[in-house]
Amino acid sequence: MTDKLQFDYYIGIDIGGTRTRIGRFLKNLKLDEKLVIETGLYEKNPEKLLEEISGKIQNLKIPNLNFAIGISAPGPCDTQKGIVKNPPNLPGWNEVKVSEFFKNRFGTYVCLENDANAAALAEYKIGSGKGYNNIVYFTLSTGIGGGIIINGKIYRGFEDSAGEFGHQIVLLNGPKCRCGSKGCLEAISSGYAISRDALSKALVRKSGILYEIYKKNGVLRAQDVFYASSQGDDISWKILNKAITYLGVGISNVITILSPECVVLGGGLTNQEYIIDEIRNFVTTHVKMAPINKIKIVKSSLGDDSSLYGSVLNIIESF
Amino acid sequence: MTDKLQFDYYIGIDIGGTRTRIGRFLKNLKLDEKLVIETGLYEKNPEKLLEEISGKIQNLKIPNLNFAIGISAPGPCDTQKGIVKNPPNLPGWNEVKVSEFFKNRFGTYVCLENDANAAALAEYKIGSGKGYNNIVYFTLSTGIGGGIIINGKIYRGFEDSAGEFGHQIVLLNGPKCRCGSKGCLEAISSGYAISRDALSKALVRKSGILYEIYKKNGVLRAQDVFYASSQGDDISWKILNKAITYLGVGISNVITILSPECVVLGGGLTNQEYIIDEIRNFVTTHVKMAPINKIKIVKSSLGDDSSLYGSVLNIIESF
Repeated sequence: MTDKLQFDYYIGIDIGGTRTRIGRFLKNLKLDEKLVIETGLYEKNPEKLLEEISGKIQNLKIPNLNFAIGISAPGPCDTQKGIVKNPPNLPGWNEVKVSEFFKNRFGTYVCLENDANAAALAEYKIGSGKGYNNIVYFTLSTGIGGGIIINGKIYRGFEDSAGEFGHQIVLLNGPKCRCGSKGCLEAISSGYAISRDALSKALVRKSGILYEIYKKNGVLRAQDVFYASSQGDDISWKILNKAITYLGVGISNVITILSPECVVLGGGLTNQEYIIDEIRNFVTTHVKMAPINKIKIVKSSLGDDSSLYGSVLNIIESF
Repeated sequence: MTDKLQFDYYIGIDIGGTRTRIGRFLKNLKLDEKLVIETGLYEKNPEKLLEEISGKIQNLKIPNLNFAIGISAPGPCDTQKGIVKNPPNLPGWNEVKVSEFFKNRFGTYVCLENDANAAALAEYKIGSGKGYNNIVYFTLSTGIGGGIIINGKIYRGFEDSAGEFGHQIVLLNGPKCRCGSKGCLEAISSGYAISRDALSKALVRKSGILYEIYKKNGVLRAQDVFYASSQGDDISWKILNKAITYLGVGISNVITILSPECVVLGGGLTNQEYIIDEIRNFVTTHVKMAPINKIKIVKSSLGDDSSLYGSVLNIIESF
């Protein structure tokens, strides 16, 4: 047990499927400098990525060795042992001992947290969820993840597996999910699902704005579907309408089960501001058992940096 | 704050939609004597029921006045203020100050808990959930309720409204629920929903075993549908198959969101032992993110008395 006040600096590392963020934080937990690495450059080679991160940390020139490292990574993780297991979002990763790696390299205190849990902690401590005892955090992005804060602490559940909001079943016998199940929220409402549905429609019709974008770029991203919808494309509107309606179902269910005081929504999909309004409308009309008019449904205020902040805030919590 | 060891006896009162149970418990929390009242005899007249309960407590002839009273009642409740709000299962009840009533009558310590939460606590402390830190309890009965124990404590959520597992949406735009929403688990898989579907089919067909039972009794209960199915009635089998499949969905979702170590199933529907096997099969094949093979799915060991035990165990927790 180390005195929690002994560190002069903190290093946060947020390992993401697309980007890895590294931040140097001052004693007062202010983010002082940030670097970003494209995770994809080190695909299927976790050791090479960890080496690259180490180099970046050395470049951050911390004036003395009195610092601690907090890491966040996609689940599943073993937070006790500091191991990233086999996240679908990090191909080629399998039981990678990230905490041990950095402990050996820098000889300092290291702790690991699931990225959605870290984001939930950050939103609770310094973000949109500040001032509430019990909050839930949704990341609405390529995948759909979640984190639960109960009485101000991360609720991790059995083997760190709680809060997998994206893998609740919202449509029995619905589309296959990357997790191996069917009809999960993530298989219907995630950025991945929106792209998949748009591509499938475009390839059948071989005309229209979605098909044109696909022909030009060789890919259809969720943001292309939002763009097409904004241009009046009816198919895009239908795809998005379905995705957002089921987001409403999934978020309603988490509220009905946990009755938090605040729901924080983060991830790329929330850049479309109207999504939050649509979700708010859905839950207000569908949740009957929780005091829905008093429950705050708000956008993340830390945005892309929520897990990075959380990785460092978790250092203090982990003592 | 009263010393928790000062009571020589405890009185438990479990107010239910159908029956109200009153128990006298010894200092060691052993149930010493139990009385049952038909709640329906006092329908829409809460004061009369509370008077009847008071009389029964007096009949229990507690040798001295050194006792405390624990009450459990259908939600929604305000457990802080000891008020039963307006439970769908207790018609005519509206903001009934039950704790105040018994406090005034007996001049002793009184506390109130939601009945599913009380049952969850009892299963955690002395029942099938003993030995686990985080458990969830489902009551599968006329309605579907739930309770959550996190780190050994009842998790109540915002305004005591957490754990309403029966009101998660499992079928978008599905059948109307008594809560006012649509497609809730309770509207598809509860005893109420099974009866409703069976009656509707029987009245359309005007023949078959369900119709014969209805003609004879003027009513079709869930247990009649189980009986008809056991006699080879195909329609009954289909109704039950749908109900049980969606129970699998609802229980999978709670596991995916909370990842408890143990799921305890209580309520009348679990008297059909095969239901628990069916649920176990469903969740084992559909839950991919939680360590489903290590999570216990077990029948309540306290049965109809779980909320009664919980009402008394909650006295000790409430200090």
